[in-house]
Amino acid sequence: MNGVSKSVLMLDVSKAFDNIRRMKEKALSHGVLFRPHFKTHQSGVVGHWFRREGIMAITVSSVEMAWYFASHGWNDITIAFPLNIREMERVNRLASRTNLTLIVDNHYQAYALANDLKHPLNVMIELDTGHGRSGIAAEDTEAIARLADILEAVPDLRITGLLTHAGQTYSAKGKSAIAQIAQNAFEKMDAARQLLGRPDLLLSWGDTPSCSMLDMLPPFDEWRPGNFVFYDVMQYHIGACRLNQIAVALYCPVVAVYPARNQMVVQAGAVHLSKDFLAADGDFRNFGYVVRPEADGWSEPIAGAWVSSLSQEHGVVQFLPGTQIPFQPGDLIGILPVHSCLAADAMGGYVTLEGDKIPMFQNPPY
Amino acid sequence: MNGVSKSVLMLDVSKAFDNIRRMKEKALSHGVLFRPHFKTHQSGVVGHWFRREGIMAITVSSVEMAWYFASHGWNDITIAFPLNIREMERVNRLASRTNLTLIVDNHYQAYALANDLKHPLNVMIELDTGHGRSGIAAEDTEAIARLADILEAVPDLRITGLLTHAGQTYSAKGKSAIAQIAQNAFEKMDAARQLLGRPDLLLSWGDTPSCSMLDMLPPFDEWRPGNFVFYDVMQYHIGACRLNQIAVALYCPVVAVYPARNQMVVQAGAVHLSKDFLAADGDFRNFGYVVRPEADGWSEPIAGAWVSSLSQEHGVVQFLPGTQIPFQPGDLIGILPVHSCLAADAMGGYVTLEGDKIPMFQNPPY
Repeated sequence: MNGVSKSVLMLDVSKAFDNIRRMKEKALSHGVLFRPHFKTHQSGVVGHWFRREGIMAITVSSVEMAWYFASHGWNDITIAFPLNIREMERVNRLASRTNLTLIVDNHYQAYALANDLKHPLNVMIELDTGHGRSGIAAEDTEAIARLADILEAVPDLRITGLLTHAGQTYSAKGKSAIAQIAQNAFEKMDAARQLLGRPDLLLSWGDTPSCSMLDMLPPFDEWRPGNFVFYDVMQYHIGACRLNQIAVALYCPVVAVYPARNQMVVQAGAVHLSKDFLAADGDFRNFGYVVRPEADGWSEPIAGAWVSSLSQEHGVVQFLPGTQIPFQPGDLIGILPVHSCLAADAMGGYVTLEGDKIPMFQNPPY
Repeated sequence: MNGVSKSVLMLDVSKAFDNIRRMKEKALSHGVLFRPHFKTHQSGVVGHWFRREGIMAITVSSVEMAWYFASHGWNDITIAFPLNIREMERVNRLASRTNLTLIVDNHYQAYALANDLKHPLNVMIELDTGHGRSGIAAEDTEAIARLADILEAVPDLRITGLLTHAGQTYSAKGKSAIAQIAQNAFEKMDAARQLLGRPDLLLSWGDTPSCSMLDMLPPFDEWRPGNFVFYDVMQYHIGACRLNQIAVALYCPVVAVYPARNQMVVQAGAVHLSKDFLAADGDFRNFGYVVRPEADGWSEPIAGAWVSSLSQEHGVVQFLPGTQIPFQPGDLIGILPVHSCLAADAMGGYVTLEGDKIPMFQNPPY
């Protein structure tokens, strides 16, 4: 690691491989279509590792990210962000060259498709099964049927499924609570499918905690987890991964050490890690665990050390009182991110333990 | 705004001009060197607006950002992030072509300069005047003197000042508390300067709240505020700006409206705004205020509407119960960011109200 002079997002390729393979095999054993969400890694190179495992269908979170992966040879892409009807022109361009699935939950989107769609396209109706972010409330079968009616009348459009993102698993307490969320969601989605008289509709499910933690999931037809490729401290706290399955760490230089306040400052700010944190009693915030770079990877987290605050470019690492701080300025440490998707997006690329540089999608600013 | 199909960071150039001019004139009236921090806008184009006001000296937060602005013709640059001694090679390259000032607070940095410096360079000693992030504790005059001794012996190195960032003004309650922070900091820094027997050392001060709010600041020699160029909701809550002085707004499409829960979802996530928020009682979080795009700018914030949660790409806008939500899918709204520096960094570029595209520095990922 002598070559690392400034903060880089280090990627342990063999951990990522294992994470990909494990989730793929679990999906296979459940007999579901595995359509991993690529918003976590956003990289054509990492995408290729999925393809080598036989994966052909993916999920992304924007039209431009879909375009990027289409350019990397992907031809079966779901954009799991509600259709933004101002983007119909870009959607049409993309639909002309790839097998595209959009998600919708309102008649404005349906009418935009009816008026402006120029190429065949799949849609899934997004249902809100308790997360409270986007989607028609899954119990509102009347609204679901009304939207399906409008969509069915659109030429070139095929309703292929019902989709939900159960983000409430992130705040669930334990495996059985997560199992309950999945079971409830399945029952609501299955009821909606029956009511529409469309048993052929796929039920699409996606979130890393449930897909990682549950031994047996309800019979959804498609899984779309994303974060599992890298995992992170958040997933570890939920119970979705072990610490040694986290595949990315921000390697960053120590710039100053302050023994009197049991702190050190590292080159790791919000522009490197994002500002997601784990909260606990009082003002306690954890923006990441501290690991030690080693010859063939990194150590387990150092006990009693955590990133306690972040500003734009500075990270403050806190040690428990009485600890001898085992670093000095110029040392390199690793930080396991609280949210790997946002750290990856902030960094814009990876370096492998072998020193290879891995580029990723850059969202154009205009 | 009919041309806006996806989220862009809209910049009101005339507000930014006014913010620049007002701060410059205030600095002039105090007789200080104005060395604005460019980490907020990170743009060669915006930098040019400062130059037109006669500003010749700037502050940045990384070696690579310094390199970017040096390439845009700036020749007097302070890197206000503690010297990362792993970057001495890049520092040397930069020092060979520009008038560079670094900040240091420990002997590891001093020895790295002693061993590896190849070109003349200025340093300021960073003092911690109460923020508790980086810098030697300003009361620890012994440590300051010790460090100054080492630095003074380094050929090609000139100690030009003492520098502090009083980030504690961000959590201060009101103008008089901020005035007290500035006064305390000045007294400690002035005492350190006297003790070193170096009355020629500049005292460098920088933070947007104090420079914006105080009518008269203590006699620092140099000011380095940065955020004032755009301001944001955080600065408004501190009392450092008026809402109509905020010069950036994320223009983003509404994708779905949920009257039953008084919410709508917009294309504005953590990858657009970052995850900084204002907290209040209980779980209340505000990730931004909602404005309405108008012909020549944007409206005042809409009463009773705020961004209540952010995930990677989704933003949830909350309205007070009983409000008729005045938007529908396909509409464009504006969001005044809580932290404009991080929103700008996340977006990577601006669009002016006139439709011009303004690029900015992109931190290379490796």
